[in-house]
Amino acid sequence: MVQVYRANQEGLPANDRGLAYGDGLFETILAEGPRAALLPWHLERLNRDAGRLGIPIVRGEIETLLTQALADYAGHYGGGRWILKVTLTRGAGGRGYRPDKHMEPNLLLVHAPAPPHPPVAGVTVDFSPVPLTVNPMLSGIKSLNRLEQVMAARELGGDLFEVLMSNAEGHVVEGTRTNLFVATEEGWLTPPQSTLAVAGVMRRVVLEHLWSAGEPVTEAPVTLEVLMSERCKGVCLTNSVLGIVPVRNLAGQALPVDNRLSLLCGLSTEME
Amino acid sequence: MVQVYRANQEGLPANDRGLAYGDGLFETILAEGPRAALLPWHLERLNRDAGRLGIPIVRGEIETLLTQALADYAGHYGGGRWILKVTLTRGAGGRGYRPDKHMEPNLLLVHAPAPPHPPVAGVTVDFSPVPLTVNPMLSGIKSLNRLEQVMAARELGGDLFEVLMSNAEGHVVEGTRTNLFVATEEGWLTPPQSTLAVAGVMRRVVLEHLWSAGEPVTEAPVTLEVLMSERCKGVCLTNSVLGIVPVRNLAGQALPVDNRLSLLCGLSTEME
Repeated sequence: MVQVYRANQEGLPANDRGLAYGDGLFETILAEGPRAALLPWHLERLNRDAGRLGIPIVRGEIETLLTQALADYAGHYGGGRWILKVTLTRGAGGRGYRPDKHMEPNLLLVHAPAPPHPPVAGVTVDFSPVPLTVNPMLSGIKSLNRLEQVMAARELGGDLFEVLMSNAEGHVVEGTRTNLFVATEEGWLTPPQSTLAVAGVMRRVVLEHLWSAGEPVTEAPVTLEVLMSERCKGVCLTNSVLGIVPVRNLAGQALPVDNRLSLLCGLSTEME
Repeated sequence: MVQVYRANQEGLPANDRGLAYGDGLFETILAEGPRAALLPWHLERLNRDAGRLGIPIVRGEIETLLTQALADYAGHYGGGRWILKVTLTRGAGGRGYRPDKHMEPNLLLVHAPAPPHPPVAGVTVDFSPVPLTVNPMLSGIKSLNRLEQVMAARELGGDLFEVLMSNAEGHVVEGTRTNLFVATEEGWLTPPQSTLAVAGVMRRVVLEHLWSAGEPVTEAPVTLEVLMSERCKGVCLTNSVLGIVPVRNLAGQALPVDNRLSLLCGLSTEME
């Protein structure tokens, strides 16, 4: 059983391990009225990564709680778009870092307005000076340990939509809140899942569409050289709330913008 | 100004960035009655690392708040030992990872019983299979991003007092809640600050004592080879609450236990 906190003002207990250590994970789910976009993918990731962290949940129980919250919160936004933010923590207490064997997880359900659609004409992106570090045991998990992304995101604002973060090997891995797809003459290129800080739900959906369409797609490290060379025919960023966002300017260099990836996937920010 | 939350049951707001992203830091301060051990060192680290994260605090204001809390909470523990846990977050809200320019930090003050003294005869320690990753921009900061330490600490219990974590270079860096000092024929050895996940207050205090005493001490990477070879004349772990803890068994290998480091520093778990 999870303990559920539903009100937007109600806080978790002061000794919750999500606050103490970032000991938990979260999903940010786009909804339109009571319908959630990509709900099965969000549930799948939450369930899998809770398992990796050793946080015991029952997928069916979480699904029921999210469905109830979707129905209850939708009224705040008429029939319009909104966000259901789901935070799952290992629970409260424990002996320092060491969890107790029989803790019950806490689930915090919060609603928020949806962000505006990104410009269809593409966005401006730069490289972040904040290095990205990924623990191989925690790769891809949308955990509550996001201080690197916060530090990088402090640059954002004005025209700058996103910054791309690189790892110690100098590979360009992902944005603060987006994954990366690069169009090349040989096909689509995206960094391997094992190198990602966050393996986005939309990244997974895009990969499935490309596989279904028989499009050539390679999961391999993305170098600065590829991104800034003639080989790069375009760059798209993906995020389950923002959709598929083409980049028109990367670190001052103009990039061709086309909506082929959105068309191939037939979704961008639409509902499932 | 910081917003202060003092009751042990009162939670932070549900949208606090400490919970959302681990966007903050903490200190765990040993107290005896209303007197805190190593308070100037804790305040110095909190102030410096808040600055590195761009969380605006005034050291004098924090000191006043802690002094008040020490006086108010001491009664719960008679004249005995207890813990003041101080959590500072960037505040509540922001646009996703991106903080607002004018957020006010939140300060959470919680008291807890002190843990038992570690055995004077030394403790049993092993190596953790959980890799330690340190972002060079965040090295040493006792931030709220501690999921790696949690994952490693799940092994602890019974006789196992601590596990040592290694980085991608294979260097042994620190325990889940302790820093590492190795006695060698050439003097003391401890991993460099720039490689640490958490630069402990007690590590700093021990370094200062060794410098004052003219003891040879080197900040350099600690390899498995040194630890498990004849060169290793003893290992101590340091923590501001637990003091200086000698290791008597490392990964099944007996180590000589002496209390020379505690004697040199004249403190172990004593009050300042």
